Amino acid sequence: MSETSTAVPGPTATQPGPAAEAAALDAADPLRAKRAEFVLDDTVYLDGNSLGALPAAVPGRLADVVRQEWGTGRIRSWMEAGWWEAPERVGDRLAPLIGAPPGSVVVSDSTSVNVFKAVVAAVRLAQQDSADRREILVDATTFPTDGYLAESAARMTGCTLRAVPAGRMPAEAGPGTAALLVNHVDYRTGELADLAGTTAAAHRVGARVVWDLCHSAGALPVDVEDHGVDLAVGCTYKYLNGGPGSPAFLHVRPDLADRFDSPLPGWTSHADPFAMSFSYAPGEGIARGRVGTPDILSLLALEEALTVWEGVDVHAVREKSLALTDFFLRCLDAHVPAGLLRVVTPREHHRRGSQVSLACDDAGSVMERLIARGVVGDHRRPDVLRFGFAPLYTSFAETERAARVLAEVLAEGRG
Amino acid sequence: MSETSTAVPGPTATQPGPAAEAAALDAADPLRAKRAEFVLDDTVYLDGNSLGALPAAVPGRLADVVRQEWGTGRIRSWMEAGWWEAPERVGDRLAPLIGAPPGSVVVSDSTSVNVFKAVVAAVRLAQQDSADRREILVDATTFPTDGYLAESAARMTGCTLRAVPAGRMPAEAGPGTAALLVNHVDYRTGELADLAGTTAAAHRVGARVVWDLCHSAGALPVDVEDHGVDLAVGCTYKYLNGGPGSPAFLHVRPDLADRFDSPLPGWTSHADPFAMSFSYAPGEGIARGRVGTPDILSLLALEEALTVWEGVDVHAVREKSLALTDFFLRCLDAHVPAGLLRVVTPREHHRRGSQVSLACDDAGSVMERLIARGVVGDHRRPDVLRFGFAPLYTSFAETERAARVLAEVLAEGRG
Repeated sequence: MSETSTAVPGPTATQPGPAAEAAALDAADPLRAKRAEFVLDDTVYLDGNSLGALPAAVPGRLADVVRQEWGTGRIRSWMEAGWWEAPERVGDRLAPLIGAPPGSVVVSDSTSVNVFKAVVAAVRLAQQDSADRREILVDATTFPTDGYLAESAARMTGCTLRAVPAGRMPAEAGPGTAALLVNHVDYRTGELADLAGTTAAAHRVGARVVWDLCHSAGALPVDVEDHGVDLAVGCTYKYLNGGPGSPAFLHVRPDLADRFDSPLPGWTSHADPFAMSFSYAPGEGIARGRVGTPDILSLLALEEALTVWEGVDVHAVREKSLALTDFFLRCLDAHVPAGLLRVVTPREHHRRGSQVSLACDDAGSVMERLIARGVVGDHRRPDVLRFGFAPLYTSFAETERAARVLAEVLAEGRG
Repeated sequence: MSETSTAVPGPTATQPGPAAEAAALDAADPLRAKRAEFVLDDTVYLDGNSLGALPAAVPGRLADVVRQEWGTGRIRSWMEAGWWEAPERVGDRLAPLIGAPPGSVVVSDSTSVNVFKAVVAAVRLAQQDSADRREILVDATTFPTDGYLAESAARMTGCTLRAVPAGRMPAEAGPGTAALLVNHVDYRTGELADLAGTTAAAHRVGARVVWDLCHSAGALPVDVEDHGVDLAVGCTYKYLNGGPGSPAFLHVRPDLADRFDSPLPGWTSHADPFAMSFSYAPGEGIARGRVGTPDILSLLALEEALTVWEGVDVHAVREKSLALTDFFLRCLDAHVPAGLLRVVTPREHHRRGSQVSLACDDAGSVMERLIARGVVGDHRRPDVLRFGFAPLYTSFAETERAARVLAEVLAEGRG
């Protein structure tokens, strides 16, 4: 099987191989105990890149937040239960997963809203250095919301927006570039962009970079500090398992925080919120990324969800992620007759996130039939099947089963 | 007791009167059964204008959302459990409380973020009619976040921002005015602005009005449709009891929806979200107010919280609210020695929300001592005590007790 087609022996000849290999890989998996910290069932859930599974500790914690902190503590809980500081506290808990230092991440609002904050702030940072910078670059295959918000940011800051492939960003950024907005992992293809190289190239021409980490946070080491990333945003409901629509994060490089000029300066980002001053004075540090009253129920559910990361090395997560996706591709080689699938995701490790995207005929129907047989991925129009591998809870046995069932479905479609 | 001072007989002379009156008023209260639908205790909770009490049905519903819809349904719940449509569905549930028609309210994001959407959209609407409109008016005593976001909206749309007293808005709006942003109830004084008159005056000069209903939604009839309000925003965690930081609402007058040009066009407001198009095409109707992925846990907790309004006439709520605040003022007349308190909130019904604000010396310390004795209001610097009356769960007996305990605290302070 190549990048563009499958070319393998028939399924039955090699079936015992993958299943036995899966058992051995699971037995040797240093993260295997983590699976027990999630609510799972017989379904092979390969859609954790869209909505992460429920961490088992969340329901109890959330019930306590509702009944005790809200029900009994009521207004006092803003201070006594630590609600007020939750956006920064949860940000600090998340920070190590993206290689960010303490005090540089805040959890607040949706990813979309944070994209707007970050892109506008990046343009303003660049223009503080040189007012002539009037162009924003966005990767041409961006998740749509990033493009829409970047367009709005361009419109509202007097910039133009230009779409270029993520891989071309280093070459396209120039002296007129204010900001780059790049998806670290392409949501559709699963391709991993070159964060280090693109960031360095942007900095060489004096531009600022905003990374969208939705599909990499919790799936692979990001190392925003090591690479000097200016700004980053990401969601918390995929590999971070925060729950449907859980609040997103915003990272601002600490040395830029006092120049972070938000387009959404709300009362909770004020230097003295309870002075209730008519004029705005931004708070210090990452608090500037806050806007309105934090959404406590979702925020504290996320906080509890993040406890599953205690003691987990994100490099071990990456190692398992690559092993799972490699194994999935090998199982497809073993099970799927040639010509039925095209592997969309790059094979090279350094170009792959934690997802495998496959193109086939009748992809929507194929995914429906897969789901009916207990293998859950998702479908992106027109022809892409996406399978996300969440290393904390996905086993090699499930991976092998997913490939096998997919092969069956495809074979039926052909037969 | 007048607007500016208390002038009453000594406390003991009239004490039996208010307590007996409270009992009679509670017995005759048509909303008294609603109290059982909330989690309450011995505390007199008069801070529902800041964070509403917990509706008793919420913990069970939220547990079900977490365990069943997220834990078991996972990604399928976006469609099968109705998560995707929740922002509009919860908006429709809320709409009658502000007199808005179905399909004109969406629940999404924080109030602050909605203020930004609404003010920018109001400016664009006004400028679609006349490009020369370049001024935004905001009420001079606005809740701070509104002013900060209006300032940002002005900066990003090439407008200027001018602060004028809410009561002066009709006189100050002119042919250069693009938008007015007005707080329906002043968060500090409890004064109710003239929604009908201000909206009509704005429309006479061709300006658009954004009303902030944070302190009126669920406390009094708003009738946005009857008064032709262009845009409105508000929070859901005060009189609507949605929980700490629960998502806010945005109302767009239906005939303006197809001209609503959001500064935050996210993927969930796209005409065909799952086409994942690079170019933005706004959805129809109120869906344009959406941005990112909806925050489901908080949204569905709010949806359950709103069930307490079934069968409740908001006019009856207003009637009880005025009766409670009138009674509180009468009890203060009866209990508090002259000269110790100044009533900040206007006495006239048509100028009062559902809150009584009082000014006194050492207000911070007075509130601390009140809370220690089981009467919870809040303090706004420098000298204001705020007492919010949530008619669904506040009793006249509690109101009388609050006034009596306040009188005791004030008398001790003097003694």
